[in-house]
Amino acid sequence: MNLPSSMKCDTRLILALDETDGAKAKRIADEVAGLVDAIKINWPLVLSTSSQTITELSRKAPVICDFKVADIPNTTRLIVEQAVAKGASGVIVHAFVGSDSVRAAVEASKDADIFVVTEMSHPGGLEFTQPNADMLAKVAVDCGAAGVIAPATRPERIAHIRRIIGGLKILSPGVGAQGGSASDALRNGADYIIVGRAIYGAPNVRKAAEALVDEARDAVSHK
Amino acid sequence: MNLPSSMKCDTRLILALDETDGAKAKRIADEVAGLVDAIKINWPLVLSTSSQTITELSRKAPVICDFKVADIPNTTRLIVEQAVAKGASGVIVHAFVGSDSVRAAVEASKDADIFVVTEMSHPGGLEFTQPNADMLAKVAVDCGAAGVIAPATRPERIAHIRRIIGGLKILSPGVGAQGGSASDALRNGADYIIVGRAIYGAPNVRKAAEALVDEARDAVSHK
Repeated sequence: MNLPSSMKCDTRLILALDETDGAKAKRIADEVAGLVDAIKINWPLVLSTSSQTITELSRKAPVICDFKVADIPNTTRLIVEQAVAKGASGVIVHAFVGSDSVRAAVEASKDADIFVVTEMSHPGGLEFTQPNADMLAKVAVDCGAAGVIAPATRPERIAHIRRIIGGLKILSPGVGAQGGSASDALRNGADYIIVGRAIYGAPNVRKAAEALVDEARDAVSHK
Repeated sequence: MNLPSSMKCDTRLILALDETDGAKAKRIADEVAGLVDAIKINWPLVLSTSSQTITELSRKAPVICDFKVADIPNTTRLIVEQAVAKGASGVIVHAFVGSDSVRAAVEASKDADIFVVTEMSHPGGLEFTQPNADMLAKVAVDCGAAGVIAPATRPERIAHIRRIIGGLKILSPGVGAQGGSASDALRNGADYIIVGRAIYGAPNVRKAAEALVDEARDAVSHK
């Protein structure tokens, strides 16, 4: 079993840095420095640059590799080991590939956090992930994951997942461009909101991040 | 809708090149040249080298990126576009994340093939993927995928999936180290067998591949 997540919880804001231009990604990371608890990156950025980007960004903020790993245990282990070796503080994995794969991720993660997808925030997430979300959340608990991913687009589902996972962290994507509200997600039990385009696509990146940090502080203080 | 798969079907053998040493991976690819219909690579090799490896290997054999993409439609599109731009002839995606994501993959793939995971060959594959395999296979058909991935470790499941997908291709992993038989998979309806360690871990790589090609030829001629 992993220790509880050691991720800081200062601003409750995680930037989804879904840029594929490496130089721009680093510039945005610099702009939000100190305003985000973590930066989440995905495969398109790694493909268009290299895995060295994980290391470079990890010097600016804790990096969560949103690799949505969904493979057999041995491949899962190899992916998580490499992400952590390159500086990732967390890796996101799927549980629908089974407990043995999630357990392999947790074992390979050492001091880093494994976050498990329960249901997904896009329309297609209703087809297979939502009907299985309770069981996927239980896999996260049973395998010693640090937390789960639950959709800000369906805040009532965050409250539901919270009842299953107890003290595990909830990271909630879908705020902003996808229509979810930061306040609703946090009031319903999310520990962090994950925001992408509404920050990195804003005319003033830092101002957009500051507004979300303010909204998050208000939401948590009035919970 | 995509056109039917244009992948050649000469030897019915796909090498799962699960090596993380880039130089060794290229050496093995050279050794099996002409003996495999495709080479399947996964994220660990991309992480330990770079996405340029897709391009380099694609000069030796058609490359299938076994990225098991399991993300929202927009991220799926970005991953598939980049893999194809770098030379991939095929990309493997999950249907568990919903039809919209699979459709995004097919649309982004242009002339390349999208293969959809039905159920997985490892023990954890029984938890969520197998109970949903029929519906996942239907998503592959409905979204215009070129084929599906079905486990050689459970050949009766290949026959079952064949009845659902009609003329789509079946690629079947789990042969060799995981216990599946090439002959059983092919006789039950697989178009290709995917073999990893039993080839790249063999004392004589080329001889191991040749033996499998012979076994495949026998199995298909006696079907």
